[in-house]
Parts: sequence; structure tokens; C-alpha cells
Amino acid sequence: MTRVGIVGVSGYSGGEILKILFNHPEVRVTYVSANNTKGAVETLWPSLKGQTSLTCDTYDPVKASDQCDLIFLAVPHTVAMQIAPTLLKNKKRLIDLSADYRLSSADDYQSWYGQPHLDPEHLSVAVYGLCEFYREKIRSADLIANPGCYSTGALLGLLPLASTHTDNIQSIIIDAKSGVSGAGKKLAAELMFAQVNENFKAYKVLKHQHTPEIDQVLSQIAGRELAVSFVPHLLPVTRGILTTIYVRCQGISDLNHLHEVYTRFYKKEPFVRVLPSDNQPELKNVNHSNFCDIGLAVSEKQNLVVITTAIDNLMKGAAGQAVQNMNIMCHYPEKTGFVL
Amino acid sequence: MTRVGIVGVSGYSGGEILKILFNHPEVRVTYVSANNTKGAVETLWPSLKGQTSLTCDTYDPVKASDQCDLIFLAVPHTVAMQIAPTLLKNKKRLIDLSADYRLSSADDYQSWYGQPHLDPEHLSVAVYGLCEFYREKIRSADLIANPGCYSTGALLGLLPLASTHTDNIQSIIIDAKSGVSGAGKKLAAELMFAQVNENFKAYKVLKHQHTPEIDQVLSQIAGRELAVSFVPHLLPVTRGILTTIYVRCQGISDLNHLHEVYTRFYKKEPFVRVLPSDNQPELKNVNHSNFCDIGLAVSEKQNLVVITTAIDNLMKGAAGQAVQNMNIMCHYPEKTGFVL
Amino acid sequence: MTRVGIVGVSGYSGGEILKILFNHPEVRVTYVSANNTKGAVETLWPSLKGQTSLTCDTYDPVKASDQCDLIFLAVPHTVAMQIAPTLLKNKKRLIDLSADYRLSSADDYQSWYGQPHLDPEHLSVAVYGLCEFYREKIRSADLIANPGCYSTGALLGLLPLASTHTDNIQSIIIDAKSGVSGAGKKLAAELMFAQVNENFKAYKVLKHQHTPEIDQVLSQIAGRELAVSFVPHLLPVTRGILTTIYVRCQGISDLNHLHEVYTRFYKKEPFVRVLPSDNQPELKNVNHSNFCDIGLAVSEKQNLVVITTAIDNLMKGAAGQAVQNMNIMCHYPEKTGFVL
Amino acid sequence: MTRVGIVGVSGYSGGEILKILFNHPEVRVTYVSANNTKGAVETLWPSLKGQTSLTCDTYDPVKASDQCDLIFLAVPHTVAMQIAPTLLKNKKRLIDLSADYRLSSADDYQSWYGQPHLDPEHLSVAVYGLCEFYREKIRSADLIANPGCYSTGALLGLLPLASTHTDNIQSIIIDAKSGVSGAGKKLAAELMFAQVNENFKAYKVLKHQHTPEIDQVLSQIAGRELAVSFVPHLLPVTRGILTTIYVRCQGISDLNHLHEVYTRFYKKEPFVRVLPSDNQPELKNVNHSNFCDIGLAVSEKQNLVVITTAIDNLMKGAAGQAVQNMNIMCHYPEKTGFVL
Repeated sequence: MTRVGIVGVSGYSGGEILKILFNHPEVRVTYVSANNTKGAVETLWPSLKGQTSLTCDTYDPVKASDQCDLIFLAVPHTVAMQIAPTLLKNKKRLIDLSADYRLSSADDYQSWYGQPHLDPEHLSVAVYGLCEFYREKIRSADLIANPGCYSTGALLGLLPLASTHTDNIQSIIIDAKSGVSGAGKKLAAELMFAQVNENFKAYKVLKHQHTPEIDQVLSQIAGRELAVSFVPHLLPVTRGILTTIYVRCQGISDLNHLHEVYTRFYKKEPFVRVLPSDNQPELKNVNHSNFCDIGLAVSEKQNLVVITTAIDNLMKGAAGQAVQNMNIMCHYPEKTGFVL
Repeated sequence: MTRVGIVGVSGYSGGEILKILFNHPEVRVTYVSANNTKGAVETLWPSLKGQTSLTCDTYDPVKASDQCDLIFLAVPHTVAMQIAPTLLKNKKRLIDLSADYRLSSADDYQSWYGQPHLDPEHLSVAVYGLCEFYREKIRSADLIANPGCYSTGALLGLLPLASTHTDNIQSIIIDAKSGVSGAGKKLAAELMFAQVNENFKAYKVLKHQHTPEIDQVLSQIAGRELAVSFVPHLLPVTRGILTTIYVRCQGISDLNHLHEVYTRFYKKEPFVRVLPSDNQPELKNVNHSNFCDIGLAVSEKQNLVVITTAIDNLMKGAAGQAVQNMNIMCHYPEKTGFVL
Repeated sequence: MTRVGIVGVSGYSGGEILKILFNHPEVRVTYVSANNTKGAVETLWPSLKGQTSLTCDTYDPVKASDQCDLIFLAVPHTVAMQIAPTLLKNKKRLIDLSADYRLSSADDYQSWYGQPHLDPEHLSVAVYGLCEFYREKIRSADLIANPGCYSTGALLGLLPLASTHTDNIQSIIIDAKSGVSGAGKKLAAELMFAQVNENFKAYKVLKHQHTPEIDQVLSQIAGRELAVSFVPHLLPVTRGILTTIYVRCQGISDLNHLHEVYTRFYKKEPFVRVLPSDNQPELKNVNHSNFCDIGLAVSEKQNLVVITTAIDNLMKGAAGQAVQNMNIMCHYPEKTGFVL
Repeated sequence: MTRVGIVGVSGYSGGEILKILFNHPEVRVTYVSANNTKGAVETLWPSLKGQTSLTCDTYDPVKASDQCDLIFLAVPHTVAMQIAPTLLKNKKRLIDLSADYRLSSADDYQSWYGQPHLDPEHLSVAVYGLCEFYREKIRSADLIANPGCYSTGALLGLLPLASTHTDNIQSIIIDAKSGVSGAGKKLAAELMFAQVNENFKAYKVLKHQHTPEIDQVLSQIAGRELAVSFVPHLLPVTRGILTTIYVRCQGISDLNHLHEVYTRFYKKEPFVRVLPSDNQPELKNVNHSNFCDIGLAVSEKQNLVVITTAIDNLMKGAAGQAVQNMNIMCHYPEKTGFVL
């Protein structure tokens, strides 16, 4: 039995982790906190009314260290790097859902997040928690940088091609569309119902902060410098990210060939499903699950590969992947706690 | 006063034309028909209850010819080309909202629409009704091929660049997202509320029938063969198309340069609005209007131009553009009939 | 030509008034203000980009008085009663969309709105702007209290029965469902997309502040004290109110009888449509219009009449009715400025 | 281990039962069928891709009898009563989700469903599966008539009051609002996305076929004849029913009193949650769960009690309640198989 803490249980990711762990037979949630909202968890999350006696309080590093073996940091970026050093010193294993430990360079962090990094020394210790690609390192890690939601959808779609046809790739365009929960549970004019409903738009065009994270992991896996062009859009749905990826690439003879590359690559993965060649993923087939569904298409004439991935941004894109990381770290079967 | 007919008034486009024309001071709708639904127009379109005494009946070429000077064909493809020849012989001016007269080659029609063309002789007579680019020809045309909804959003975004920087263009990717009314008013499992709501997906990836239409016009305007890669997606909204266009292109020095190209190009257009450089278009700002809003971005390092356009698929993408074409054909000011 | 001002043009109602008046041939908007947002109106309302050169500034009573003949107060309650006295003194005619002048008793105001009334002397001067019932008084009024959105939907449904079968009414239950724009354009956790989408709930059960307004007008028209039970609900749509009204009432022999009462009552009204007996109103048939659609049903066995009304809360429930009031005050035909 | 069959697995309720049972440790789904769609279940329900090897075929009573101990009939009304007699003869225990065995009178069935009942002899054998009220009978039943979705939301709200204050009740009005999945997975113009989205309406006003079912159970539990007035509405959401119930009733002194009646009544129920007095239920707190949340309000002056209930129509209103019934029949703990 692992004693687990959730710092930031009032946010979407923190709440989702809690809900998954209620169905997990090997862990017990022993500590939850939230800075702005205190009191019974069932008041924070009324869907849990009557199902838990957990209460949450202002974050306290001593209590958290005493009561937990492993702690999820479901906090905004800049907060995680203030909390992590003490917890790591206290020998706690951490899964950080913020962006604070994803980029290996403190300079990159400063240029994309607009603030200096406060804990650069742990950057090299952190393991990027993309389970399908860093499983071995995750197993023994003390600090997991849980991938960004957009990064997860993009990288799971790109990496099979990038790692097998590295030298053939000429350019990569990522056109991603996310539901509003991806922005977190914050009051903002552009997230009001009357603004989002019956609407759709691109934002942070070519400027989104997940771009360097994608570039970094992609280049590492591919073994050469690669840079993507990334444009996110805001969908009028609560959950889900659909990512359409355009790779100008030589050497893919046809759709069957591409399909074989992807099915072989992911054949043992419990949470990645390569769809039949004539199918395309849909948000509704992955929402509320930890699956990533992948669809494929090829234009041989234009040397263009189109890869489409669908994930639930709160599950495979955040809380689900975080729990999968925990399962790997604790040597539990990876699907433990996930229900259909 | 022009006497106007609408064939197919029970469909989304036909209904929308009717609503626009109620506010048009220079025309009178004298004839409406619908094959499957007869009776009072206010029963077909309950929002019009009490506002019109028009009734619709099965299509009758004699009545249509007798009662109208100009006729909108708001019918499915394959139907228009069965109706048009007789009406043209009767000297009626036609605006066809179907795909039947958009492609100049009957062979292309057959290969993309899966049926032989039934009226190839009028293909060369038809004028492609993209108002901003074929205004002069439209003025005297007898048969307008009103552009496809996706084609309109793509071409209005592409053409300023394609016509000014023709030789610098290396590749074009069009990632389009449309509301469900784009599919027409038909019973289909994939258009049911429970299927579309909280969902999103790509469909007809690299295979959509608007592709050859975009290629044809683009190549014509650019003066050299160009081919796009086009992927449409289905948005959980009723109206609107947002099109994100990625052009690999040399010679655009920066965003200011690009912005100047577009503002100069469209400066006299009543229905195209190039947004300030830091803005991106949103469906809610164009829905229920005939505007096309355009946003721009540039990655100089990657020689990539990103153009985003928003239109209401039923207005600028169908009925609105059709009425704009009528205004041009009849020498009315182009904004006549359009309200804010 | 009437010179018109809009105080509070950045809110939903203020913006909607502006959009209607762009199509109104007899008035000119000469003054607009908004307290928190200054600058070009086309920045506040991007759908108007390029269509107006109006700019808005902090409210200034001198400018407003100098530049306008008639002023819409599209401000929150408590603000209107601070602004109105000066403007009335300056002989301006006012249409107040807030709640400040709707209740005839300052005590009632205090008990339902939680604050003392600051301008009790004008309460008796204000005319309740329910056009269909107070048209004559409106014509010469200087201060219109534009009805609440819920009140409009409820009263238009109730009044024909209440005024013709007054003594037969035993009890009235009003179950209303409103889109989120009814709450105004404010930042609030319960109005976030992720909170409203795929959700539905009742709120302020039996406690909503429109209750005394409905009671007051109903009792006045009926000629005896009547009190309703009112429960509002929040719909996951942007616009529209559907109100289902249950009246326990004797003396309605059957549906035909009821239908005749209503059609006779409203037969000359331009904006109220009594539907055929077998039809029920839908939001989509009234949204973006000033219509109120009414459906009827009767259970003779249970002496129960069920009246259902649909309005667009921003149009007939706010801005549309306000403009209709202006048309009456200025002796313009009532439909002037309204388009289909 | 109970061997379970699902007839009609392609419908919403059948699919939902299947998904619940994947997480149920005591049963195995050994047989599934669907009349119109054959083949792999993972093709019917793409969210299950890779998670099940079940295949479905045309219904076969011999196979179903051989392979199952207990069978869910998730079929349209009129189909269940053609299937049930043979299965009952073969000693199978049945849970019928259709309306066929809910009404005790074959005449009532004919008058509300427009067809003669084909198996009147089993009407008296069937037990109405409202778990909270018929638990003892359910335990030993062979044929469960699983309650209608609207009936469940209404009865769970009404019964505590109706059984404790029977003689004080004067009249009951039920204003219910349901998501579209309540209508089943059928092609219908009024269920298209473009028709439902941004819309809301009442339908079958005072004429819905769940009315006699509510009356029958209510009268039985109350011990005297009671009749409700029932008006359903269609919400633009996929799942969930919110039911607002208005009971004119004497003898409820205040909200505390009412709250005590309800909390006492349901205190041992695993799936009914009476909310704190100042709270109202919301669809989002019960969707995807088997909970029924209840909110309360009282107008002492008007002798009016307002009870609001929220359920997921596919869970507590159909599949969830069906599985709860199975748990009772098989003496499993009632929450077995349900996850948070």
C-alpha cells in the first residue's frame, strides 16, 4: 500500500487524480491540499458527496512529508519548483504535473515562461514522464515531469515516425484542438460559456509554451535536431485534444506501410491504439479514459504523412498519465486503477 | 425590382437565402420550391411564422421560368445539372450553390463526385462566383458556380499570397474545421446530437471533394500549377468554418510585411476584414454575417506563413456569397440586403 | 431623426441595442459609454470591426445630455438610479434596462435587492415597459422601466388568461429556463464554460428577484392580488428563455377555447405569435428576433392550463423590447429597425 | 459467477450495461445480441476498441438461454414482450429495460403505447424495479420491469413525501428536462445536432407515456389514488435528467422539517443523496454515476414544496438501475461494479 498525496486537489488535474485513485487497490490517498479552498473534498467536488471524508487544507510540507510516500504536484507552473526541493530532500517521490521540470534548460524555461527557474539543480534529475518512451527511467525516478497535454498528443503521434524515419523528415506542422479544461480551472473572460460556446479560434499561433517541450523530446528520440510548427485552437467542449500532424517525409511507400510502422511500434502498449487504416480517432472514444487513439493517412504524391491523435487532456494528457507514471514507479501493472 | 426564385428552399442554404432577401429592397422572391416538403414556407421555417405567405411546391421549370428573372439553385449536387439547361435555355440567370458547375473538367467531376457530368457543355459558360476575384466576369454571367464553403475559406486566405508571391510558394496545407450545417440538412448517424456533441474528429482526410476546386482556382489565380493538402474536421457547433492554412513560402520578411500584403489586397472589399497583426479570427465574430475575417502569423526561421480565416459557412460560405453574386450580377451595391 | 445614447454599451444588452439600431432608419446613435472599457466600439464588439467609428468613454452626464434626445441605460441595477435623476432633470427621455424602476415600492426594492432605493421619487413616474400591456402610457413616458427577461416571458404567457379569467385562477407555478447571457457579461465561476456545458440546474428556487415584479404587474392587470411561485434554471445555451407556466384554473373548457382566448388577445401584436394548438415553442425559432412564441395545453380533468413561452432574453427580454419601447415613445412603427 | 446476456447491446442502455459490467467482479457477459448490427462489439462501441472480444449477432433464444443465467432486455418496447415469454419458460431471470412490463394493466398499455399487449399473463409476475422501494420483491423476482428514466427521477423525488404525508398532498406538477440520449439511438430529424444545439423545448405536454407509470407507483406507495401533471422538455446535452417537482401540500412546517423527512427516508440508500438545504442538484454531479441527488425548497405561505432531482438518464435512469437490480437479485452488495 503506497501512501499518496495530492497537492492542488481543487484543480481539474488534482481532482481527476483523486477520482482515479478511488478505484486503485494499491494506494491510499492520505493527504490532499489546496491553497485557496479549504474544507471537505466533497464540497470542492460535489460529485463525490458522501464518498470520501478527506478534507483539504493549505499546503504544509511537514504534514505532506510525514503522511505520504509519493506526492502528485497538481499545481500551476512556478509553484511546483518552490515546493519540490523540500519534498525531494525529505525523500518523497514526486510527480509534477506543472511545466516546471519539463525543459532541461533553465534558460529555455525563462524565455518561454517569462520567469527565472528557481530550482535549476533538479532539472537534470527530473525524468520526462512520457510512459511509452521513458518507461525504464521512470521506474527508478524520484521526480517525474509529467508531459504537457498538447505535448502528449503530439509526441505520441510523431515519435514512431520520427524514431524510425528520422532522416527522411523535412518538416512538421502540428495543428491541435483542445477542450477548455486544458486551460485549467481559472476565471478568465475568454473561458466564459458565452464566449466559448458556438465559437472556435486559434490562439498563441506559433508561440505556445509547449513547443520547446515537443522539440526537445522529439530531437532526443530522433537523435537529431528537429523543430515543429505548432498552432493550438480552443474547442467548444470540456475535454479532449485532437491533434492533426502533418509530416513532410520521404520513404513512406503507402498507407499500409505507415500503418505497419505504427502498429508494430505500439503493439505492446496498454493505452495506445492504432486504428484500422480507414478510421480516424474521435474525442468521444477516448474521453474519460487513458487511451490515445491514432489515425493515419498518406499522400504519396506530396510525400505527406498525416497523423491524427485523440486523447482526453485531463487523463492521458494529465492525471491519467500521472497515475500511469505512478504505477510504473511503484511496479504496479500499468492499467491498475483504470476502469473502462 | 428583380423577380427571384429559390429552388430548394427547405435546405439550409435555400432557407438562408430567403431570410437575407426579406431584407433586400431591390428584389422580390416570387417562386420557391422544395422537392420533399410542400406547403407554407412558415411551416418549413417556423422562425418565419407570420412573416410570409410564400408556399412551396414540387419544382416546376415552367412556373420557375415564368415567375423569375434570376434563380438560386440550392439543391444537392447532381440535381442542379439536371435543372440548369432548361432554365438557361429560357434565358434565366442562375446561381448554383451545388458543386455541379465548379470544376471546369467533366472528368474531374466524375472522379471526385463518382458520377458522370450530365451537362458538360455549360461547364465553360459557368463563372466561379468567388466575388473578390471574379467580379468582372460575374457581372455579366448567366450561370454562377457558387464556391464551396471550404473552398471559400481556403481561397480567401490563400489568394493574396498566392497571387503576389506565386513563385515562392513551396507547399500548402489546409486544416479546416466546420460546423455541422456544412453537411446539409440530412438525416445521418454521424450528424445526430449525441454523436457530434462534446466530440471532434477529422474526416475524408486528404480526400475531400473541395480539394480539386481549391487547386483549380488557386492555380488559375497564381498562374502556375499548385496543389494543396486539405484535411477537414467536424466541429460541435451549428455554423462557421475556421480554416488554418500553412504555407511554406520564402520572401516574407516578417509579420508586418505579410500584414501589408493582405490589407492592401483587400482594402476595398466590403466583406473581407484583415485583422490587426496580434488578433486571430473567431467564429462568433462572423457568424450570421457575410464577413470573412483573416488573421496572420509568420515564422521567419521556418519560412512558414500561417493564415487563419473565419466565415459563416451558410453566409459567406453559401447563401451570403450567393446573394453577393446576385448583387454584382444585378448591379446593386454589394452590401444591399445584408444587415449587421 | 432621434439622437440616441447607450450607457453601458459593453454589456450584452447595450451591445445588442447598438446592433439593432444600426438597422434603424430613424435614429442615430450619437453617444455611447462604458465605465470599465474605453476605446473603439469595434474593439469591444469585434463582430462590428470596420462597421462603426463610435468610441466609448467613461460616462459623462453633460455630454450625454448634450448629445442625445433619448438614452438607454444598459447598466447594472443600483447604477441606473444614480444616473437617471440628472438626465431626467435635463429633459432626456430614458429607457432603463436595469431593475431600479420596476417595483413601485421602495421597500420591496430594498427587501429583494438588498439595498435602499436612492431615487424613490421617480418610482411613480416610471412606466413599466411591457409594450403589449402599457402601450398608451409608454407613448408619453419619460422614464421606462424595461421589464426583466424572466418577467417578460412569464407575463406575456400569463396575462391573457389572468385578465380574462381572473377569478378562476387558483395558483400559478412558473418554471423558467434561461441561457447564460441572462446573467450578464460578468466573470463568475458558475458561468465558466466547463461549469455550464453539459450541465443544468435550478437556482434561487422560490427566491429570484423577478418574482415581485411578476406579482406586481400580474395583480395590476388582473385587478386582484395574485402571487406566483417562480423557479429559474440555467440552460447550457447562450441565448433564450423558455418558460413553462402551470395555472390551476377553472372555466377553460378545452384547448380550442384556450387557443381562442390567446389568439384573440394577441391578434394585432407584431411580436407575439400564438402557435397552432399542436405546436410548442422552441428557442431556435425566436433567437435573434423580438418574437415571443406561445404554446398551449390543457388538462380538463385537473383544471390545469399549461402555457409555454419562448423569447430571446437579449431581444424581447431586454434590448429588443427596449427598442420597441423607443419606437412607441417616438411614434415610429413598432417593427422599425427589426429585421428577420 | 453469474453468466449474463445483453439483448440489444447496440443501443445506449445496452452499451452502458456492458461498460458497467466490465468492472463487475461477480458476473461474466457471455452473450450479446443486436438485431440490426452484427460483428465485433468493439466496432459497435469504438471506445471499447481492444478491450473485448465479444461479438454480437441477431438475437437467438436458444443461444441466449444456453449461455446465460440472467438477461438484460435493452430493446425497444413491443420487442421485449415478444422475447420474454420463451426466456421465462427457460427459467432465465430477466431485467427488461423497455416499458412492456411496467404497467399492471394491459388496457393502460394499449391506450398509452398504441398497441395491444402481447404477453398480459406476465404483467402480474413482473416486479417494478425501483430499487429503493421494491427491494424485497426484487430479490426473488424473475422478471424486473426496470423503471422509465423520467419515472425514476420523479418517483425518487416524490415518494418520501407521498408516503409520509399522503393525505396532505393536493396536487403534483412534474416539470422534467432530459438530455437527448433519453430518446434512444435513433435517426430522427428532431434529434439532429443542428436541431437540438442552442435549442430547448417542451414536448408531449401532458401526454408523455411515463405519466401512467408514475401515477401507478405513486398511488401504490401512497396508498391512495394520486395523479400527476407531467411535462417533459428536451435539453441540449447528451445525458442527464433534472426534474423539478411542485407539490401543493399542507403540514410541512419549514425547510428543516422537509429536509429531515428526506434525509431520514434515504439515510441507508447507497445511491440517493439528499443535498444540504441550501444546495440544488446539477447534472454534472451525477452524470456517469448511479446517484440520484435531491434538493429541497418550501414556500410555507403557499403550501408549496419544490423537490428537484438529478440523475444520469442512462445510469440511474436505465443501465445503472438495471445493474443495481441485478445486484439485488443475485445478493451482491448493491454498489458492486459501480466506480466513482
